[in-house]
Amino acid sequence: MNNAIAILDLVQDELEKVEAKMREPPRPLNSSKDGDGASARPHDARYDVSHPVLNQVIERLLDSGGKRVRPALTLLISRVYAVEREKAIALAAAIELLHTATLVHDDLIDGALLRRGQPTLNATWSSGATVLAGDYLFARAAELAAQTEHIQGMQVFAHTLMVICSGEIRQMFDKRAHMDRQQYYERIYAKTAALFSAATEAAGVLGDVSPAVQTALREYGEQLGMAFQIVDDVLDFAGDQQKLGKPVGNDLRAGLVTMPTLWFLERHPDHKLVNNILNDGHKDDASIQTAVRLIRDSGATKAALEEARQFIRRSQAALETLPPGQYRDALWELGDFVVDRQR
Amino acid sequence: MNNAIAILDLVQDELEKVEAKMREPPRPLNSSKDGDGASARPHDARYDVSHPVLNQVIERLLDSGGKRVRPALTLLISRVYAVEREKAIALAAAIELLHTATLVHDDLIDGALLRRGQPTLNATWSSGATVLAGDYLFARAAELAAQTEHIQGMQVFAHTLMVICSGEIRQMFDKRAHMDRQQYYERIYAKTAALFSAATEAAGVLGDVSPAVQTALREYGEQLGMAFQIVDDVLDFAGDQQKLGKPVGNDLRAGLVTMPTLWFLERHPDHKLVNNILNDGHKDDASIQTAVRLIRDSGATKAALEEARQFIRRSQAALETLPPGQYRDALWELGDFVVDRQR
Repeated sequence: MNNAIAILDLVQDELEKVEAKMREPPRPLNSSKDGDGASARPHDARYDVSHPVLNQVIERLLDSGGKRVRPALTLLISRVYAVEREKAIALAAAIELLHTATLVHDDLIDGALLRRGQPTLNATWSSGATVLAGDYLFARAAELAAQTEHIQGMQVFAHTLMVICSGEIRQMFDKRAHMDRQQYYERIYAKTAALFSAATEAAGVLGDVSPAVQTALREYGEQLGMAFQIVDDVLDFAGDQQKLGKPVGNDLRAGLVTMPTLWFLERHPDHKLVNNILNDGHKDDASIQTAVRLIRDSGATKAALEEARQFIRRSQAALETLPPGQYRDALWELGDFVVDRQR
Repeated sequence: MNNAIAILDLVQDELEKVEAKMREPPRPLNSSKDGDGASARPHDARYDVSHPVLNQVIERLLDSGGKRVRPALTLLISRVYAVEREKAIALAAAIELLHTATLVHDDLIDGALLRRGQPTLNATWSSGATVLAGDYLFARAAELAAQTEHIQGMQVFAHTLMVICSGEIRQMFDKRAHMDRQQYYERIYAKTAALFSAATEAAGVLGDVSPAVQTALREYGEQLGMAFQIVDDVLDFAGDQQKLGKPVGNDLRAGLVTMPTLWFLERHPDHKLVNNILNDGHKDDASIQTAVRLIRDSGATKAALEEARQFIRRSQAALETLPPGQYRDALWELGDFVVDRQR
């Protein structure tokens, strides 16, 4: 954890600027720069995109924390390539708000009531209002991304949102009896690694890096993101409910096969209790808790963490394309932080 | 209607290209242009953003029609300013897909079961899948907008989506006992005129027009959009259910005060039946039908259409900034089409 603190120290000041950026009111659309259009555009000129309810939602979502790993990645890489700070901060804020928007809709779809120890938006709001709040956050994230004034960055941004949505649609419609590793990897790529790689690649794009470096940055983010999601999936079995801010065993309860369950089923393909839970058989709390303990104590979570470490090693290998220095060192150490974290 | 046909003739070929563009598979994210990154990016390289379910949704939504007024606006204006055709087509497709995405979420939120005579997505899908489909369409629209490679166009695009979402949030949370005209205008600006003005302004932006022309284009789209929405609101009282593809009286049923009801209440502020309906009193079909007839026959719909014509005249006045020619003539005539349409 000392490493983590050292990494964050490097970008702490700017992470605070990202935080402020995410909370600042949207810019008015100042299309005619000489301002002569105000009287001719009565509605747009007067139309205040902010709304107290939306401001409260943003404050509440951002106050509940989050590790800010994605914006930290963007900031560190943008430092390596001397990206203009205003643009790096706008990009980091866009990436984190996009992440926040997807969580708002995810929690609604999953009916999740707690995240980071706080009630989710859908726990207190109507589903209609929750849909709209998520949409607004998407729009605000896109507006922040546009502040980078870099069209290729916008393309990475839009493409990533498509990957995330498409991955969720796939998960919803392609129910399979037995998920294999390849399918699991594809799912966590869409769910997490795609946005990590957008955070790292787009930062390089703003710094006008060469295609080879751009590929390396993308690879770094992707491998780190894969590891990050595997650790998330391990914490759902081995984590501390207090630290996580949500109950463990969520994935099993939802019938979702993640790395620890995959590993367990590779060794015990016909295990009755686990198969029953996954096939909607026994979903009472006692069965879930028994299965969580069983899988955790089988060595599955240890094996999954080892898998995560392999992804980290691949991410670190990709860093060799970057010039050495404190920022590259920090990006390297971020890998250990990702695997060792407790929430 | 002859006018409408003549207008569309001018852009018919390109509207078909817009149609094809909206249905084509998303481009892969080709970040390293020399293609050397394929082996280093296993997940992204293999990840197919398309999915049969998503393709079906897009086909189904687009097959159900729609008047394609927004893309026609973009195409006509982009012709006046000699915008590169590929970019104009991408922008027109982006605008129409953004519109489609907002309809998907709107219908879900309103619980609407029919649109354009077809079952809505939420009528046959789970709400979770409908949320995701809308999100995917937002992302795809943003990707198409990014194909214009014009950052100011992206800014207009993102800002417009914020206005639309913010307007809906406002409508949901700011329930007022008595809506006045100003509030009505603000609502229909956010709901419709903002996207119309984005369609016209962004087309000019791609043609690098002067700030004065950009303001005029925005004004034209905004005034036309205001008229378009007033006519929509009139059709909910005076339209033919068959032609509309949805039941009339929807707005009253939802407690929504639109121009005809506003006009009626300005003259009969204490009318019992209408106030009861708006205050959730009597919502049986017979009461709704009685109130619809009452408001329609009071002269309210005629007065509202006259109001729409005033907006059209303002939109036509804004066109004087444009160079004369067949495209400007078509944009002028579009106003009459908007007011005279039956669906």
